[in-house]
Amino acid sequence: MSIFQKVLDGAAEEITLTLEHILEMHDEPEAKLIKAMRYAVLDGGKRIRPFLTLATADLFNVRRERALKVAAAIEMVHCYSLVHDDLPSMDDDELRRGKPTCHNKFGEATAILAGDALLTKAFEVLAGADTHPDAQVRSDLVMALAKAAGPEGMVGGQMLDLIAESENLNTPEITRLQSMKTGMLIAVSCETGAILGEASDSSKQALIAYAHDLGLAFQIIDDLLDAEGNENTVGKKTGKDKEAGKATFVSLLGVDRARDQAQVLVAQACERLDFFGEKAEPLKRIAQFVITRSA
Amino acid sequence: MSIFQKVLDGAAEEITLTLEHILEMHDEPEAKLIKAMRYAVLDGGKRIRPFLTLATADLFNVRRERALKVAAAIEMVHCYSLVHDDLPSMDDDELRRGKPTCHNKFGEATAILAGDALLTKAFEVLAGADTHPDAQVRSDLVMALAKAAGPEGMVGGQMLDLIAESENLNTPEITRLQSMKTGMLIAVSCETGAILGEASDSSKQALIAYAHDLGLAFQIIDDLLDAEGNENTVGKKTGKDKEAGKATFVSLLGVDRARDQAQVLVAQACERLDFFGEKAEPLKRIAQFVITRSA
Repeated sequence: MSIFQKVLDGAAEEITLTLEHILEMHDEPEAKLIKAMRYAVLDGGKRIRPFLTLATADLFNVRRERALKVAAAIEMVHCYSLVHDDLPSMDDDELRRGKPTCHNKFGEATAILAGDALLTKAFEVLAGADTHPDAQVRSDLVMALAKAAGPEGMVGGQMLDLIAESENLNTPEITRLQSMKTGMLIAVSCETGAILGEASDSSKQALIAYAHDLGLAFQIIDDLLDAEGNENTVGKKTGKDKEAGKATFVSLLGVDRARDQAQVLVAQACERLDFFGEKAEPLKRIAQFVITRSA
Repeated sequence: MSIFQKVLDGAAEEITLTLEHILEMHDEPEAKLIKAMRYAVLDGGKRIRPFLTLATADLFNVRRERALKVAAAIEMVHCYSLVHDDLPSMDDDELRRGKPTCHNKFGEATAILAGDALLTKAFEVLAGADTHPDAQVRSDLVMALAKAAGPEGMVGGQMLDLIAESENLNTPEITRLQSMKTGMLIAVSCETGAILGEASDSSKQALIAYAHDLGLAFQIIDDLLDAEGNENTVGKKTGKDKEAGKATFVSLLGVDRARDQAQVLVAQACERLDFFGEKAEPLKRIAQFVITRSA
């Protein structure tokens, strides 16, 4: 195992522990909700978004326990979006990370509520005084995440994704869709690290630009995995985009050009970090990881 | 029309205008999402929760435009909960306020996303610098709403409500369910008014206690309307609780004792406001309105 893989695994472990602490089980009759929330967040995803928050916060020497809280909030929002996205009326997925999807395990109504609860809990965590002592920082964190996850961001992108099932979108439209649906949450993962670090505007902008490029590359790889991947290694159903007749980077550019494009984007993303010198090495490494992943 | 009814209608109009402003239509392809969000919030509910925010803020001479923003955020959270509650896998309702429910009008997937987007937008509004110049106030607003709407509050109550369909709950359990599902959002409607007004702890506690009593009375009346009301005046299907065999205050206490209980709670709620003198008259009036309403 490479050293970087160990760093990644260690961070994933810390994030899991933080999430377990935030979503503590109890004996009340409604505990099924917490169980479903934990199921959705504790099953060991790659934790790329929270890793970005931690690695960005490290650039500014942010205390680990603060960065972990924010990283956990971002991961809760990511997982809520997966739970709702998997629902029968949305993508109707049965598997996620190789396990039954949340609604498959707990029923549709509970899955909807678990998603709602994860989203709400994320904002509670960001507004908590132990996340950062300065209320301005906390308010900025809430604003950044709400914008990235809301109708002008992730949820708007999911709406576009629904529309893409019945309408033909061109490359700029697909780029916009993916930037909203995936890119903005990836960007805010870095942005929140910078907010925690009370970074200068120019640092913040460099990091957001890095994350946007990375987000697009991430999505292209996702499309490639859907087109070429094996269900067992990817952990969810593949070939879905083609089956649905959905325009993706792969259907628009072809496999080879799509892969080239992802590599160009990652190279560009890493250049934007030169500003930070050696400290930015983990952010460069995760970008490489994103385009070489097989799941 | 009584003078108070005019006050109530005027406030409802201001809240509608604020919501229209927050949820501005645009020409992007994903505008259907905004349309569904507007449909969910602009159809003229009674606006009791935002009225509570405005009336509470008035006790502390909070600027109207600030109170309206917070009131609109509370109403967005209330309406998101209705949209998700009405879904086929939840209550499966076809009518809401006499009109097709959001998923009936826009489809299930869009309704889920519209609910998600309204919840997210509410936190964006609370974190906005034009809602209050002091970041501590904004952060407190976010925390209060997230707690009231999250797994220990409204969503937890909705989970209990699902459980109540298959398990028999007793009076204390039903009271807890209703307090979480309905009472906590009503309480936070007042609490946020007090936060905006930077009220003392004792003022805040008096207002929260008032709102808790009011919330319970509100729910008892809701149960009575479901048991006795006419679908045309109530604007949604009635007799549902009995049909579902669900325990409610009415099934537990009977019609007469339930009505008495609501009146006792409202009287108790109003007493808690004596502290504020004449200024609290609108809050006393809305409490009376709540138990005499027929829809």
